[in-house]
Amino acid sequence: MRVNSQIDFNLERILLLSLERENFMSGKKIILTGDRPTGPLHLGHYVGSLQNRVLLQESCTQFVMIADAQALTDNAHQSMKVRQNVLEVAFDYLAVGISPEKSTIFIQSLVPQLPEMTMYFLNLITWNRLKHNPTVKQEIRQKGFEENVPAGFMIYPVSQAADITAFKADLVPVGEDQLPMIEQTNEAVRHFNRIYKADVLKEVKALIPKMARLPGTDGDAKMSKSLGNCIYLKDSESDVAKKVKGMRTDPGHLRVEDPGNVEANPVFTYLDTFDSDAPGVEELKAHYGRGGLGDSVLKKRLSEKLLELLDPIRKRREEFAKDPGAVMAILLKGSLRAAETAAVTLEEMKKVMHLDYRC
Amino acid sequence: MRVNSQIDFNLERILLLSLERENFMSGKKIILTGDRPTGPLHLGHYVGSLQNRVLLQESCTQFVMIADAQALTDNAHQSMKVRQNVLEVAFDYLAVGISPEKSTIFIQSLVPQLPEMTMYFLNLITWNRLKHNPTVKQEIRQKGFEENVPAGFMIYPVSQAADITAFKADLVPVGEDQLPMIEQTNEAVRHFNRIYKADVLKEVKALIPKMARLPGTDGDAKMSKSLGNCIYLKDSESDVAKKVKGMRTDPGHLRVEDPGNVEANPVFTYLDTFDSDAPGVEELKAHYGRGGLGDSVLKKRLSEKLLELLDPIRKRREEFAKDPGAVMAILLKGSLRAAETAAVTLEEMKKVMHLDYRC
Repeated sequence: MRVNSQIDFNLERILLLSLERENFMSGKKIILTGDRPTGPLHLGHYVGSLQNRVLLQESCTQFVMIADAQALTDNAHQSMKVRQNVLEVAFDYLAVGISPEKSTIFIQSLVPQLPEMTMYFLNLITWNRLKHNPTVKQEIRQKGFEENVPAGFMIYPVSQAADITAFKADLVPVGEDQLPMIEQTNEAVRHFNRIYKADVLKEVKALIPKMARLPGTDGDAKMSKSLGNCIYLKDSESDVAKKVKGMRTDPGHLRVEDPGNVEANPVFTYLDTFDSDAPGVEELKAHYGRGGLGDSVLKKRLSEKLLELLDPIRKRREEFAKDPGAVMAILLKGSLRAAETAAVTLEEMKKVMHLDYRC
Repeated sequence: MRVNSQIDFNLERILLLSLERENFMSGKKIILTGDRPTGPLHLGHYVGSLQNRVLLQESCTQFVMIADAQALTDNAHQSMKVRQNVLEVAFDYLAVGISPEKSTIFIQSLVPQLPEMTMYFLNLITWNRLKHNPTVKQEIRQKGFEENVPAGFMIYPVSQAADITAFKADLVPVGEDQLPMIEQTNEAVRHFNRIYKADVLKEVKALIPKMARLPGTDGDAKMSKSLGNCIYLKDSESDVAKKVKGMRTDPGHLRVEDPGNVEANPVFTYLDTFDSDAPGVEELKAHYGRGGLGDSVLKKRLSEKLLELLDPIRKRREEFAKDPGAVMAILLKGSLRAAETAAVTLEEMKKVMHLDYRC
């Protein structure tokens, strides 16, 4: 299948990147990854993370967290929506092939060790340091919080540090913009190990896929629910076709015979991503550049490629969605396993903190 | 016994104060109280809270928390000291007569529901609001934290809100300076109940004893370890006698025949507190004011009164300290009971937040 070869290609790049830093293949690495359940997942998630998780679960010990508690840090009043999206995200995970046999899929709020660890980390991080986290500062601007930013949102990097260290993750797949989070986690880890004279906690490395981010259908750099420029994994065949038809191309390309611009043309970015016939795509680009190739031809081809990818995903998703109880059982089982793992780490932490009370 | 009549008098004042606000006697009220385990307890604790707890446990459901996690918010690097003081504080509790049969004595870090609740509350309180808590601002100045205040310390009022609401406390005994904490707790409670359209959480009332605070032996308004002006409950007979001998009196009272000042003279404040022969103390005051009464006579009398109070406490304390394992068993049992109570509240919270996952 074409998509797979694309995925293999991505994985190869990821692995090479990691090999630059350490002997990736020497042991079974632990990975923590996940999503805030604020909506169903889209093609941007698929390209940026989901397809990698499907592959990484073969060689790594992978924890996939549905971060409901984190979603509440800026959605406290929309907990019903968060709850519903926990299942939506789980359907997406299972549909793309994240397997509960190979990965531990869990719900954050069902791992009570995480807030406990967060509280201990908060004592090791200054208020001032939190205030100057560049990622959080930018998000506060984007969300228009200003003076009303919830305290829970300000401390979410510390909560993330707990998520990561609880599972002793070696690697966390993140975008470049998330690097300050990884640095803050490692600061907490070093501080903890230093003051409690222990090596209980492990520093983590960022796993940054070289894969460029998938733009939105409108050409915006980011596919995002709030921008309304997403193709969701659960979109119907006709929705996908309609969304592709409405995609931005070269706004100067008015008549078929005009030369068109291939750069900043999201249809070509998508073809580069989803059409594994690279020479074929190069030919199309040349033709488009010369003139004589209509947008509708391109879009028809893209629609076909996307449906090839999305059809089986949507069908599997529909199957899972028929039995939400069974999916919830998978999540509860994964959460139990995650809590057991986190409990071991927390116990080790409490021991070196001398908080291991017993008679 | 004289001390008891003094205690009864205090309780009467407390009860009257409460009756002003609500029908205190109508139901069995729930009380949350406790201490940070940063050192052994002293006479200031005894007068300000311990003696009241001994009485309140007869008529109220009382939870007494040894706040080890809170102690770590500004003592993260001294966790061994915190751990040791957990037992010291427990010895003091048991020695003064706080009974594990009547009160639930527990260790904060053994109730994992508290950090969970704290995290949910943090989403309902703005960063800005935390910054302007007057009690915390003053403490930051006192502790000289400036820019290096740990984030855990900044959010401890939210952690307190969790402690209070987890047990559905009706009353929290606090000093006037702690009123902003109670207000912040009730803000969180109202916010939670409002956005989750529930009445799961209960607002709490401050129980402010009219009893004046016991000054230090040096006349400072506060008896405090850091000022070195404490008489500890565990002090030996000779230590108590020595500390009383060194107490500040009227610095202008140089010769026995000189008239002495009774005001701002901590020896008289102590006599007012610990000598229940009020007419006798009034006579002493008059004599001292006229002149002809030496400090040593006063101090001898005070020493006797204090030893009368402290001797049985110290003896009981020594008995408990002989078997720390048995005391820890009491704390573990109490912590289990506390966790069961907190778990009920957390479950109710999660239900209205739609985070009650099940198949």
